[in-house]
Amino acid sequence: MSYTEIHGVPSQIPISEYLFHRLNQLKIWTVFGLPGDFSMPLLDKLYTIPTLRWAGNTNELNAAYAADGYARLKGIGCLITTFGVGELSAINGIAGSYAEHVGLLHIVGMPPTSAQTKQLLLHHTLGNGDYSVFYRIANDIACYAAIINDTDLSVDEVDKCIRKAWIHQKPVYLGVPVNQVNIPVDSNRLNTPINLRIPRNSREMEQPVVDLILDQIYKAKNPVIIVDACVSRQHALKETALLCDMTRFPVFVTPMGKGTIDESNAQFKGVFTGSLSSPEVREVVYFSDFVLFVGALLPEFNTSTFNFGFKTKNCAILFSTAAKFKKAIFPDLHLKPTLQALIKKLEPSRIQYKYEETRNIVAPRLEPNDADLLRQEWVWNEISHWFHERDTIITETGSSAFGINQTRFPTATIGINQALWGSVGFALGACLGASFAVEEMTAVENQVTTDLRSYDRHIDVSRRTILFVGDGAFQLTAQELSTIIRWKLKPYIFIMNNQGYSVDRYLHHRSDASYYDVQPWQYLQFLKLFGATSFETRKIVTVGDFKEMLADETFAIPDKIRMIEIMLPQSDVPETLVARWQAEKESTNKRMHDSSDDSSTNSSPSIDLRFTKRPFLGSTNQSSHVSTEYSQVGVHYL
Amino acid sequence: MSYTEIHGVPSQIPISEYLFHRLNQLKIWTVFGLPGDFSMPLLDKLYTIPTLRWAGNTNELNAAYAADGYARLKGIGCLITTFGVGELSAINGIAGSYAEHVGLLHIVGMPPTSAQTKQLLLHHTLGNGDYSVFYRIANDIACYAAIINDTDLSVDEVDKCIRKAWIHQKPVYLGVPVNQVNIPVDSNRLNTPINLRIPRNSREMEQPVVDLILDQIYKAKNPVIIVDACVSRQHALKETALLCDMTRFPVFVTPMGKGTIDESNAQFKGVFTGSLSSPEVREVVYFSDFVLFVGALLPEFNTSTFNFGFKTKNCAILFSTAAKFKKAIFPDLHLKPTLQALIKKLEPSRIQYKYEETRNIVAPRLEPNDADLLRQEWVWNEISHWFHERDTIITETGSSAFGINQTRFPTATIGINQALWGSVGFALGACLGASFAVEEMTAVENQVTTDLRSYDRHIDVSRRTILFVGDGAFQLTAQELSTIIRWKLKPYIFIMNNQGYSVDRYLHHRSDASYYDVQPWQYLQFLKLFGATSFETRKIVTVGDFKEMLADETFAIPDKIRMIEIMLPQSDVPETLVARWQAEKESTNKRMHDSSDDSSTNSSPSIDLRFTKRPFLGSTNQSSHVSTEYSQVGVHYL
Repeated sequence: MSYTEIHGVPSQIPISEYLFHRLNQLKIWTVFGLPGDFSMPLLDKLYTIPTLRWAGNTNELNAAYAADGYARLKGIGCLITTFGVGELSAINGIAGSYAEHVGLLHIVGMPPTSAQTKQLLLHHTLGNGDYSVFYRIANDIACYAAIINDTDLSVDEVDKCIRKAWIHQKPVYLGVPVNQVNIPVDSNRLNTPINLRIPRNSREMEQPVVDLILDQIYKAKNPVIIVDACVSRQHALKETALLCDMTRFPVFVTPMGKGTIDESNAQFKGVFTGSLSSPEVREVVYFSDFVLFVGALLPEFNTSTFNFGFKTKNCAILFSTAAKFKKAIFPDLHLKPTLQALIKKLEPSRIQYKYEETRNIVAPRLEPNDADLLRQEWVWNEISHWFHERDTIITETGSSAFGINQTRFPTATIGINQALWGSVGFALGACLGASFAVEEMTAVENQVTTDLRSYDRHIDVSRRTILFVGDGAFQLTAQELSTIIRWKLKPYIFIMNNQGYSVDRYLHHRSDASYYDVQPWQYLQFLKLFGATSFETRKIVTVGDFKEMLADETFAIPDKIRMIEIMLPQSDVPETLVARWQAEKESTNKRMHDSSDDSSTNSSPSIDLRFTKRPFLGSTNQSSHVSTEYSQVGVHYL
Repeated sequence: MSYTEIHGVPSQIPISEYLFHRLNQLKIWTVFGLPGDFSMPLLDKLYTIPTLRWAGNTNELNAAYAADGYARLKGIGCLITTFGVGELSAINGIAGSYAEHVGLLHIVGMPPTSAQTKQLLLHHTLGNGDYSVFYRIANDIACYAAIINDTDLSVDEVDKCIRKAWIHQKPVYLGVPVNQVNIPVDSNRLNTPINLRIPRNSREMEQPVVDLILDQIYKAKNPVIIVDACVSRQHALKETALLCDMTRFPVFVTPMGKGTIDESNAQFKGVFTGSLSSPEVREVVYFSDFVLFVGALLPEFNTSTFNFGFKTKNCAILFSTAAKFKKAIFPDLHLKPTLQALIKKLEPSRIQYKYEETRNIVAPRLEPNDADLLRQEWVWNEISHWFHERDTIITETGSSAFGINQTRFPTATIGINQALWGSVGFALGACLGASFAVEEMTAVENQVTTDLRSYDRHIDVSRRTILFVGDGAFQLTAQELSTIIRWKLKPYIFIMNNQGYSVDRYLHHRSDASYYDVQPWQYLQFLKLFGATSFETRKIVTVGDFKEMLADETFAIPDKIRMIEIMLPQSDVPETLVARWQAEKESTNKRMHDSSDDSSTNSSPSIDLRFTKRPFLGSTNQSSHVSTEYSQVGVHYL
């Protein structure tokens, strides 16, 4: 039976219903946003498709974050806002999706075409008759922007928007004037799926790249593979796993690529964070004679904290839609088919590199006492043992984004963070979106209710959604917790309470500036206040509290929403960063600041890494010298 | 003594300190925003000026709303955000300031010039090396945008930015790369105040307009004056009051102009909301033979709810920087000097119109019983009697924005709303900003601690800050309550709880759509949870509760923060709107919708206007016919 027959779709339907049927076909069952007077007619049509649900967020920025988190699991996210006020409120979230290669369909309910033509001074306008300003702005942070104006082409436009968001993994802007919501279109088109195939590479372009890479793969003596975020964005998880398996090369992930490959595999050697990597990671990557960088989001990534270049010039980089070998760029090469071609031609017997099982260096398990107060370093190492297969783990920009790099993910764990865009407040919204997605993916797994195409991503279903968010970051988007509660979603929300913006406090080398402080809230009271009826809260102050929580088997079952406040010292940051950061900061200051008299950065904070009661990590090594001492406090699993 | 002598300013200071001294000179003592790695060096300099305080908001959109609310009282507001993530989060608030003519200085901490030149892929970028994208976007919603790049011109640039924000009452964007924060400049310039004088009008342009208007003033038989928002924006409160006084014409305000003139004056005849005005107002304005529209924000204002044109062609409109008489436009005429010229030349003895004291029609005080549940209509009329002189009253977009038009403001009341831009969530942020401003204005009044110029606006100091916000709207920006508490500010926060987006529910004529619902929160618990120690909360369910609250003299004294939850029926909207809205909506639908098949708007909600226990308002008159019956339920004071 055809789609229209199964779903009883009449032969003529409004274009808006057509759009929502298309989302339904892609299993995009949750749509995010807030109602507005120009978007309500759209929402009425959304409500006519029984499988779709309208999240009803608390504000548009949160909604955009949620759509982004959802898209990272389901391949695409959809957000509906209203003209002007709504779309502009969401724009920082959209920009994040653009920067981080996340497929997003942003539908904006617009004033009627006639009002735009006549330049009526409607509300939600700038009062100057300029109706195109928001569209112009949107264009700057979208891979495609369109407004439904031409009745005849509306169906093509809708399909094109969805296709572009899916293939390019970037935001697409689709404006729908209120008078266009009901344009009648032929529903039969729904019986032909949108073509979401990634374009084939041209053989002439692909072949030389594949040969060049294979040549390197065969002859390299100290090769590494580094896996970045676009592997998951481009649905190339399987191909990448197979390539790693066939070569047996040591494998690293970037912070954004964390969760993309199986970290339980012995080939996995840790997180490569450029110059901030642990010495073991840095040594292997920097002294390799061939780097194969798969699914790269960026050629380089320089921040005040990261410097993400490679020392070796012998580097092959596979981007989403291009490849780079040494200095040569090969455009129009899509990641997935390139990997497929590589795998097809690869003869493992010709590989010179011999895989050696290296002893994973485990940090000495110097145990603090149960009565000791918590430290970041210990917490991140401990929590790692609590993670399950198929967890979805979301970390906020800040200490959590660094701490998570100390953990090893079990098989099929999905990681979500915003390492490039780094918009504080993102993670709680993303947690909502991910929770919806996980719920839907579980539903699909448990009952085959559909004949729709299923995509790569759906295989990696996880059961638990786990958020790590700082107290400072939580405040920016706190009300979105209400939407999580409204839908009875059941994430774990760990509030890493270190009394303010600690990473910034540390970065800026001033621990005394009050602008790092935030108002202390009673975080654990929020669940009740927002209307949760079934929930659990815990305040974790000591090492003993933390151990007890992790040992509690009922705690590990995601049967209700849980909020856990982890009390951490104010000037504590994940240990892996402390010394290296210091050195990096100094070199960054030299490199990037034209003017050298920024006296405020001279006073470094005194970070005491000892547990309050019983020191066990020793004093901080402030030098950036690669030293074996680091192996005591670096990534534990190498 | 000079400014630099009084404040012990060294002869050379960093440009950033210069900037903050300039703000201090204008008594702009609170700066809004959040810290970010590119803005922290700026904040360090802000902290060196003892009179300045850094608000430390909970997110950037809220901060922008707060800066807007502050600016409406103090003439200009200042917001500091960080590159990319920070500035984009604030953009909807900035656009609101642009639409509503509010002077805002938006300072953005940017990456160092060298990183921009080299197109380094820093975090908070889109990852494509485009550093100008945010500046381009900002340009679309600013009257001026600059980046401090040229060392020699930096002082001029700073002065120019402040001057433009002040004079044009629009947002100005000022980017400060981190390496430019410490450019040394000569502080002696601080001893010459920034020229904030509104430019003089050219005599050749001004004279004919003045003569044309005077001619109309003298001969009009049924004239009216309508006062709009730009009277306060352009510091022309006194001139406008004087003009009204000299002519004795009936005076109306627009919703955005409410609070601009003295409503206790017998000449004041109500709020003109175009076709939605009460019949008494509409009759007078529509049948007038001369409309003098002073400080107009917009020539026309058409929304799905408003239609703001005039019937008479005999209309003189004074904008901020232009005038219009009939079809002729006179550019480059500034409001304040035009008004001054008009007043100077006006001979009241030549005015033919004779002012007649009209009996103010007071609605029959049919009192509900104490046990009755509340209704919007009754609440807004009652609260009017509780307002004091010099209150600052902020109303959220939604029912409150309409309800407030039923009230009469006491002398020197300041009104804040966002009638044009209409961004839901604005009012709580604006309440924070206004509370800061009121606190500072009170301080200035009570102690002459300064030789700084004082501006028009500072005379209108109010003691209480009063916010009316719907439950749905409160959710968008709820966390900013925390900043109000953090600073121990003491506004009254009335949560008008009608369980969702009621105005939208009504507008869109569907009471059954669940997208109007919001998650029910325990609103009154927020104060404690956000850390308030001295506060009062009240839940007002019945007419008796409400009366008791208003009669409580201790309640009227703003000695602590107060939150009052007013429980209202879900499908209740302010009475003044009900019938007219219905008619307006129908005509708007006809006028604006090209496609006529929007079947969803056909079912109108059944609005029952009776009190639950004892009906006293009678049934709704669904006709738009101007009828004397309306005087029973319309604006009470005419």
